[in-house]
Amino acid sequence: MSIDVLLYWVGMAAVAVNALTGVLDSSRKQMDLIGALLVAIATALGGGTVRDLLLDRNVFWVADQTYLMVALVTGLIVFFVVRRTNLPPQLFLIPDAIGLALFTIAGTQIALQWHVPWLAASLMGVITGVVGGVLRDILCNDVPSVFLKGELYATAAWAGAISLIVLQESGLAAVNATWAAMGIVILLRGLSLRFGLTLPALGGPR
Amino acid sequence: MSIDVLLYWVGMAAVAVNALTGVLDSSRKQMDLIGALLVAIATALGGGTVRDLLLDRNVFWVADQTYLMVALVTGLIVFFVVRRTNLPPQLFLIPDAIGLALFTIAGTQIALQWHVPWLAASLMGVITGVVGGVLRDILCNDVPSVFLKGELYATAAWAGAISLIVLQESGLAAVNATWAAMGIVILLRGLSLRFGLTLPALGGPR
Amino acid sequence: MSIDVLLYWVGMAAVAVNALTGVLDSSRKQMDLIGALLVAIATALGGGTVRDLLLDRNVFWVADQTYLMVALVTGLIVFFVVRRTNLPPQLFLIPDAIGLALFTIAGTQIALQWHVPWLAASLMGVITGVVGGVLRDILCNDVPSVFLKGELYATAAWAGAISLIVLQESGLAAVNATWAAMGIVILLRGLSLRFGLTLPALGGPR
Repeated sequence: MSIDVLLYWVGMAAVAVNALTGVLDSSRKQMDLIGALLVAIATALGGGTVRDLLLDRNVFWVADQTYLMVALVTGLIVFFVVRRTNLPPQLFLIPDAIGLALFTIAGTQIALQWHVPWLAASLMGVITGVVGGVLRDILCNDVPSVFLKGELYATAAWAGAISLIVLQESGLAAVNATWAAMGIVILLRGLSLRFGLTLPALGGPR
Repeated sequence: MSIDVLLYWVGMAAVAVNALTGVLDSSRKQMDLIGALLVAIATALGGGTVRDLLLDRNVFWVADQTYLMVALVTGLIVFFVVRRTNLPPQLFLIPDAIGLALFTIAGTQIALQWHVPWLAASLMGVITGVVGGVLRDILCNDVPSVFLKGELYATAAWAGAISLIVLQESGLAAVNATWAAMGIVILLRGLSLRFGLTLPALGGPR
Repeated sequence: MSIDVLLYWVGMAAVAVNALTGVLDSSRKQMDLIGALLVAIATALGGGTVRDLLLDRNVFWVADQTYLMVALVTGLIVFFVVRRTNLPPQLFLIPDAIGLALFTIAGTQIALQWHVPWLAASLMGVITGVVGGVLRDILCNDVPSVFLKGELYATAAWAGAISLIVLQESGLAAVNATWAAMGIVILLRGLSLRFGLTLPALGGPR
């Protein structure tokens, strides 16, 4: 599989997964159907949109509205499933971690292909992975959970983005480096959720 | 009247009306003159700015600062009127509905002229109509009211944008389709405010 | 010193100073190292990024990642200093005023060089100066303090930007006008903090 084909399908999967988390999160608020769908769209497309604006690239869902349709259809299905059944909130965490990994690594790859210098490229990956969730939290009037202490979220994304660059620089094929780096993001996020792995923090103990 | 001339004046009117709602909303907060004017500018220019960035178009108020002047002068006048008289808060709702209709339909038309595919174009309309108000609510530290259940706001915008596209595709002249679609936005918003028309929603009863 | 060299170093200093305020502000929240660094980066690079997007200019820290490195290293140093010593919160105000002056005037100069009309150029300066702090406040879930009554913040920025344009139009050399306008921003901000200088405001007395 070529790296471009891989990135296309990874991006599409990330859009679906993030749309799902958007609806799940908005279900805790008083939102109607269109409100929930717009939060789903913002969560699914927000990170990649900011990346494309920063790179002065054609915005991906304007150039190919399949992404928008995937976000919309996923959002619709999840909306009506959530209305009928009460899903446990933890269910939210697994697709969220996968979406974070997919978007972060796809975003970093795209920035590298766009000849962005390495540190800025890794930040592009973090932005692609994290901004959708930040938008979701702001639209739902939650504190953006991304930066809070006690969970490796942005940290997992950034570690994965840097890993991707190091692995590719050391000669690993792009497709393999992509899979490995996505694994690192999910692993770090999982370790943090399961074992409470944390970083040093400011402020008193939580 | 050509469609370009119509869109120019509709956009200018929408800027004035949204600047007005920005000052009225900020009057409930502790803002000074410049704070209120900047909220007015963000409300008036925010939606169209995001649309222009997404389309990689020249930002409209940078290319033609008349829009900025209209926002500023409207904001100044409203500021000093509000200081002297106590306007009822419901007054806010009518210009807000008109601004939503003007911006949404103008934004959709511009995206169609820019050859954006139809679903993405309708979302551009919603973004143009809604983002100014979301910025206003965030800067005033309110919950963005746009997505909440119990009112057709983003819903009215999206229905109007889709109507515009359907009407134009079925052969109606652009100018007539523009007026009709703006009417649909205002009608739906009005029905929601007057008769409590709503959409299905997640979460318990309000 | 040429105006371009001056703007380069003024911009770099503003990035460092704003990164510092980002970490200081996030230290009042429960943020871990990477969370604090990302807030520092958003505070340091946010205003200039929005300006560059609006001007359709290459985003400054993507074109030259030195800015990003300066933000990151400053953030790291401040993070570990803050962990060991308890800095008084007022310390925050002086670098914040300097950062506001540096960014506002550099942003206005860049917009003028980009042939933006004068009123829009002054607003570009305000955006460059203020958006980083607004992002910081939103990410830290504070009310954006920028627009509140009782302090000349956005007001000081806008007065400085207009002064720069007037001084340059009246024939003062660009480098001298730059220094003078930065002085005006710091002076107004200082007078507001020291003597409670304010503008007329809406709403009841504070």
